[in-house]
Amino acid sequence: MQAIAVERGSNRPVVVETERPVPAAGEALVRTLRVGVDGTDHEVIAGGHGEFPVGEEHLVLGHEAVGVVEDAGDTRFSRGDVVVPTVRRPPDGPNEYFRRGEPDMAPEGAYHERGISGAHGFMAEYFTSPGESLVAVPESVAEVGFLLEPLSVAEKAVELAVASRSSFTWEPESALVLGNGSLGLLTLAMLRDQFDFERLYCLGRRDRPDPTIDVIEGLGATYVDSRATPLADVPSAHEPMDLVFEATGYAKHAFETIRALAPNGVGALLGVPNAWEFEVDGGTLHRDFVLHNKALVGSVNSNVRHFEAATDALAALPAWFRDAVVTGVYDLPDFEAAFDDDDTTIKTAVQFSAYEERR
Amino acid sequence: MQAIAVERGSNRPVVVETERPVPAAGEALVRTLRVGVDGTDHEVIAGGHGEFPVGEEHLVLGHEAVGVVEDAGDTRFSRGDVVVPTVRRPPDGPNEYFRRGEPDMAPEGAYHERGISGAHGFMAEYFTSPGESLVAVPESVAEVGFLLEPLSVAEKAVELAVASRSSFTWEPESALVLGNGSLGLLTLAMLRDQFDFERLYCLGRRDRPDPTIDVIEGLGATYVDSRATPLADVPSAHEPMDLVFEATGYAKHAFETIRALAPNGVGALLGVPNAWEFEVDGGTLHRDFVLHNKALVGSVNSNVRHFEAATDALAALPAWFRDAVVTGVYDLPDFEAAFDDDDTTIKTAVQFSAYEERR
Repeated sequence: MQAIAVERGSNRPVVVETERPVPAAGEALVRTLRVGVDGTDHEVIAGGHGEFPVGEEHLVLGHEAVGVVEDAGDTRFSRGDVVVPTVRRPPDGPNEYFRRGEPDMAPEGAYHERGISGAHGFMAEYFTSPGESLVAVPESVAEVGFLLEPLSVAEKAVELAVASRSSFTWEPESALVLGNGSLGLLTLAMLRDQFDFERLYCLGRRDRPDPTIDVIEGLGATYVDSRATPLADVPSAHEPMDLVFEATGYAKHAFETIRALAPNGVGALLGVPNAWEFEVDGGTLHRDFVLHNKALVGSVNSNVRHFEAATDALAALPAWFRDAVVTGVYDLPDFEAAFDDDDTTIKTAVQFSAYEERR
Repeated sequence: MQAIAVERGSNRPVVVETERPVPAAGEALVRTLRVGVDGTDHEVIAGGHGEFPVGEEHLVLGHEAVGVVEDAGDTRFSRGDVVVPTVRRPPDGPNEYFRRGEPDMAPEGAYHERGISGAHGFMAEYFTSPGESLVAVPESVAEVGFLLEPLSVAEKAVELAVASRSSFTWEPESALVLGNGSLGLLTLAMLRDQFDFERLYCLGRRDRPDPTIDVIEGLGATYVDSRATPLADVPSAHEPMDLVFEATGYAKHAFETIRALAPNGVGALLGVPNAWEFEVDGGTLHRDFVLHNKALVGSVNSNVRHFEAATDALAALPAWFRDAVVTGVYDLPDFEAAFDDDDTTIKTAVQFSAYEERR
């Protein structure tokens, strides 16, 4: 079968011929429908993140997949079920984190990430997965099921943020998403659908007219141009924020978030930047953090519970939003276009096979 | 009556003569037993923190008090009850934070802090307090009741830290307290009594023999000399920590805490440093924070619920610990000794009247 992979020493994706996988006990064979592309894929391709599987000369890409069960094996699924796989797998048989359904909390060494680190991804005509790492989704969202993984990542981060404010009465009104990439926009839509924020903001650095600004405003949120209003100025220009969700990977944002928060506010950090030394007014940040009961939570990956929450968020996405955010779905011969990234691109996917509804 | 105050333009405490307060509706009159001294008092005296009450030429000091109800008024208390006051009061009548019992979460402007900011403290022969801001304590701890406020501050910070880890299975084994002042030592004792940490550490910078090191080791914890093992080296020299509790007010500790944490760990920050610019590897900190699901919570003040939790912690303190930590209790004529701060001082208090048990 054909797969999209990056080869050792290369920094561009190519089509490779691989063996169709055979499901082991407890696994299902899934026919791949579509696999999304995100910033992590670009980092993996560039060699800045992730690891090749031991002994392999290539890494099959892709961690945002949706597919159809081809052979359910001894799993709880049936042939024809639409499913989305989670990303982490145990490297040497189940460990405590996987056993309790929290692979997202496993420390380094206790997981592989399919398509990212130590294990092949889903950008292939077929993939296998343990039944417990597959989430059933409604047929109605089969075509956009590749949005479930990024939505699940947002669900987990917001869950951690909300938990951090659970020992007191917290009634947040304002939320700011940092970053107008696909994760930022999906998070904005999820926050709008699942929470009662009165005012939503999204920070980017694009000139109008711009499709992401249209999406932000279509969701009823306020676009903040960081070139005119840097994060540090957001409280004075707009308001201090009860929740800040960082999806830029820009390290200064992690620290400026502290100042952007309202008293008792929380910042969820999701970016994975590289080393970068810079100066901070650490004394003022520390003091502000303490005197106003602020919090920061780092969040990576997601587990089945977050995929399930994200399934509701995905089903609730307005049709116009899906149409605007998914800017391109490309068949295998044209897969390279899915890895282009310019100002007209929001979210792309590669289609491996078409979904046909069961009568 | 006599009170200990700092006058405008001065930076040393003096005895002043003031009117004995008259309880208003809903208030009790309390005869003061003892009032503790802590780092915040020193900052208030030095002018680095807090505010004088509007229109007043002095600020009565003290926010760590224990007393005996002299006139219960229409409160739920009885004459003779041993009580400890909370610190925050509404500046202009009750607001939502006070109404729901969470004055510790009030933003600036929505509270005064007695003895610190905008309202006189408890270092006087008598004070009045609304009944809902008084916590009853057992007679058996009347003499060390001034330890309740700092313990309550530790209870609140740990409550926030634990809440931040409540959305997943968190079974912490190791905790590190930064700072071997009285708050650090009280926190260490509280963590030992109320949690199941297998290994406790406390960081300071003192040479042996030293009374705080004796207390740390008496509690079964490991003393970490930050001159030999800076915080950044703690994970390699000892282990990464599931919980870090910062009670040094040293701004670099707020950032080094991120690296000292184990995956899924949380740092509670309590220090209130002044502005201080320094360089951080913000990219590496951000990346580490995210990839290991770490969290930081800032925490200030405490409410009645935390005082109640602290009452249990106070009653559980071993007698040797109380004796070792309370290094001096001084009558009013000798009050200046309570404000001395050298390597033999851990916790001091001023005694305004002696406690005599009821029959």
